[in-house]
Amino acid sequence: MTLAEAAEELVRLGTDFHRRGWMLGTSGNLSVVLSRDPLRVAITGSSIDKGRMNPGQILEVDAEGKLLGGTEGRPSAETLLHLEVIRSAGAEAVMHTHSVWTTVLSDYHHSRDGFAIEGYEMLKGLEGVQTHEHREWIPVVENNQDMSALAVEARAVLLKRPEIHGLLVRRHGMYTWGKDLRTAARHVEILEFLMEAVGRRQMMEPT
Amino acid sequence: MTLAEAAEELVRLGTDFHRRGWMLGTSGNLSVVLSRDPLRVAITGSSIDKGRMNPGQILEVDAEGKLLGGTEGRPSAETLLHLEVIRSAGAEAVMHTHSVWTTVLSDYHHSRDGFAIEGYEMLKGLEGVQTHEHREWIPVVENNQDMSALAVEARAVLLKRPEIHGLLVRRHGMYTWGKDLRTAARHVEILEFLMEAVGRRQMMEPT
Amino acid sequence: MTLAEAAEELVRLGTDFHRRGWMLGTSGNLSVVLSRDPLRVAITGSSIDKGRMNPGQILEVDAEGKLLGGTEGRPSAETLLHLEVIRSAGAEAVMHTHSVWTTVLSDYHHSRDGFAIEGYEMLKGLEGVQTHEHREWIPVVENNQDMSALAVEARAVLLKRPEIHGLLVRRHGMYTWGKDLRTAARHVEILEFLMEAVGRRQMMEPT
Amino acid sequence: MTLAEAAEELVRLGTDFHRRGWMLGTSGNLSVVLSRDPLRVAITGSSIDKGRMNPGQILEVDAEGKLLGGTEGRPSAETLLHLEVIRSAGAEAVMHTHSVWTTVLSDYHHSRDGFAIEGYEMLKGLEGVQTHEHREWIPVVENNQDMSALAVEARAVLLKRPEIHGLLVRRHGMYTWGKDLRTAARHVEILEFLMEAVGRRQMMEPT
Repeated sequence: MTLAEAAEELVRLGTDFHRRGWMLGTSGNLSVVLSRDPLRVAITGSSIDKGRMNPGQILEVDAEGKLLGGTEGRPSAETLLHLEVIRSAGAEAVMHTHSVWTTVLSDYHHSRDGFAIEGYEMLKGLEGVQTHEHREWIPVVENNQDMSALAVEARAVLLKRPEIHGLLVRRHGMYTWGKDLRTAARHVEILEFLMEAVGRRQMMEPT
Repeated sequence: MTLAEAAEELVRLGTDFHRRGWMLGTSGNLSVVLSRDPLRVAITGSSIDKGRMNPGQILEVDAEGKLLGGTEGRPSAETLLHLEVIRSAGAEAVMHTHSVWTTVLSDYHHSRDGFAIEGYEMLKGLEGVQTHEHREWIPVVENNQDMSALAVEARAVLLKRPEIHGLLVRRHGMYTWGKDLRTAARHVEILEFLMEAVGRRQMMEPT
Repeated sequence: MTLAEAAEELVRLGTDFHRRGWMLGTSGNLSVVLSRDPLRVAITGSSIDKGRMNPGQILEVDAEGKLLGGTEGRPSAETLLHLEVIRSAGAEAVMHTHSVWTTVLSDYHHSRDGFAIEGYEMLKGLEGVQTHEHREWIPVVENNQDMSALAVEARAVLLKRPEIHGLLVRRHGMYTWGKDLRTAARHVEILEFLMEAVGRRQMMEPT
Repeated sequence: MTLAEAAEELVRLGTDFHRRGWMLGTSGNLSVVLSRDPLRVAITGSSIDKGRMNPGQILEVDAEGKLLGGTEGRPSAETLLHLEVIRSAGAEAVMHTHSVWTTVLSDYHHSRDGFAIEGYEMLKGLEGVQTHEHREWIPVVENNQDMSALAVEARAVLLKRPEIHGLLVRRHGMYTWGKDLRTAARHVEILEFLMEAVGRRQMMEPT
């Protein structure tokens, strides 16, 4: 995949996610691996408005997050977290969305370090899951402006639970990933659905 | 109706239901009878992304679910459940949607095997219902990855309550049907409305 | 206004209200006065799908609801209620929508015969209201399949409270009206907003 | 920026905010500074329907709100409040939106004169905020039909808390602003997200 091809796809996805309320304002980042050796990644630049994206705002970075290509802006600090997920989870694409439901649930379940989603058919939309009886753990890590520290924490979570498909950062939304752009984008849709379902389910019987 | 005509209609409906959040990711299936003798059915293929459907993904199957036509993919395991509803309910079209509200309510009411919706004018949008005083029972069956077993359970429910217009599978969404595609699609809209209304009504007075 | 002009406007409004979830399936009706003497009214026909409206489905009726024009279908039974509102409220256009929030609130407040909305700035979007300190009573009448009986009840409510801008029918949505089509359509938007706001407000502090 | 350029931008924003439910009916106003010395401001006219805006409805006013340009209508009474924010907050653009969540929260928190939003990453979308640990106070002032009095109250709030990015008027929505149109529009999106998130968060654990 060339940077130009990646840029077109990421702009399309980002614009769609903005419309659906999952990447409002300048929130969220999307990335995709262009090559593995050496590692080259296309990623949304820092502080771009997801409702007005253009392909020039998609940047090419190396394994350390150094800027190699793109015509506008600079890499976001969150680039480090994307690179960590690409390495630790072996992901080819990483999506950081920031919806209301992931924000609410990340706060509600923070003191328990996360929560399980179990028994939902929609879980089968996650790569490799064959049955609704699957138990998906959704880790919640504390938010941190120090992205190196947050990357270290994400790595620890991924080492401990390599089977997960996503994680929440407290009051900061979700990271999910996949073996290609289409899979990662599907994981966004699946996990957003599940978050809304378990959130509303709980509101039927508040405790 | 030819396979090509059916494919065009099912793609249109699936794309609309995806946009409305009722068939996210690869969830849901839609089918319509092409002929009765011998039975030929057009149905969405396995694991297709409802946000990027194309007519080639609509397959033709026979009474046992064997693939007869279509250019891409293979029949979903849920084809068996569609065929069962076509036989047991005498349906010409079957819609399996998977929305947040049907998921939440199917879980909430599961231990009671279902719930009644009564006194709502919108019930008159269901075929044959003449008054809001109608009492519509919404059965909830346990989810099962064995589609033959789920088909047997659906048949038992339809034998016991032939007057129903839809059923929920626990944490797996809704099946509804009709005498033609337009009626089945209207039943989706009517039942989704009713689910949201009774769900929110309960949230006004949580117990 | 000619029938053709009215049909174009009513199709545009109905399609928009369907998209917003206020006239799903075949629910809801819209009408506008074409002439007063003799009374001629354009109104949506019976059982038309609001997601697929066409101008031929808009009918012309007289003061008794007798069909005078239009190319497709027949007048809905609810025509009688529209004609009653046109007479009793002196309305030039009547909108019957059927949203989730009006359905939920009409049920919740039914035993009190209605509820007041007071202190909301959005009330000033209702014709003649000059301050948010206005107290708008929203009557709720019991649903009835006998439209003559429902028309009699609506007339009684309008005689007793001529200052109201809309009323709810229990578990059946809302009627609102105005001095022209644009005013009536604005009243739909204003009242739908207020219903959602008071509904969610109550859910912040359930009792 | 000329009046014509401002009109084009304000119509685009207003139409988008209407579609998202933040400026329904005739609610809300948008303004942008055309020049500082002398002060010239472009602002949406009184009582215009935000779903049918056209550039002629954007008016030019001076520092006292006197009409200088525009082809249709007259300045809204709320022009005074926009001018006050332009002066007191040094804003170049002011957005008054009127969504369900701002309406609900302004009422819920009114007796405490406001509420704090703290610990949310989305806060960083507000100009000058560098960390989610930021504590943003959202003042709530009582609604008033006397716009001069409301302007005085807004000035007092802005003098006391010059660091704020927005304020709520009870049951009347939100005012936010920025150093240019794009920043002010981003603040709308950011604050609307935060209101919905803290509103739903509270509904998970109603008190």
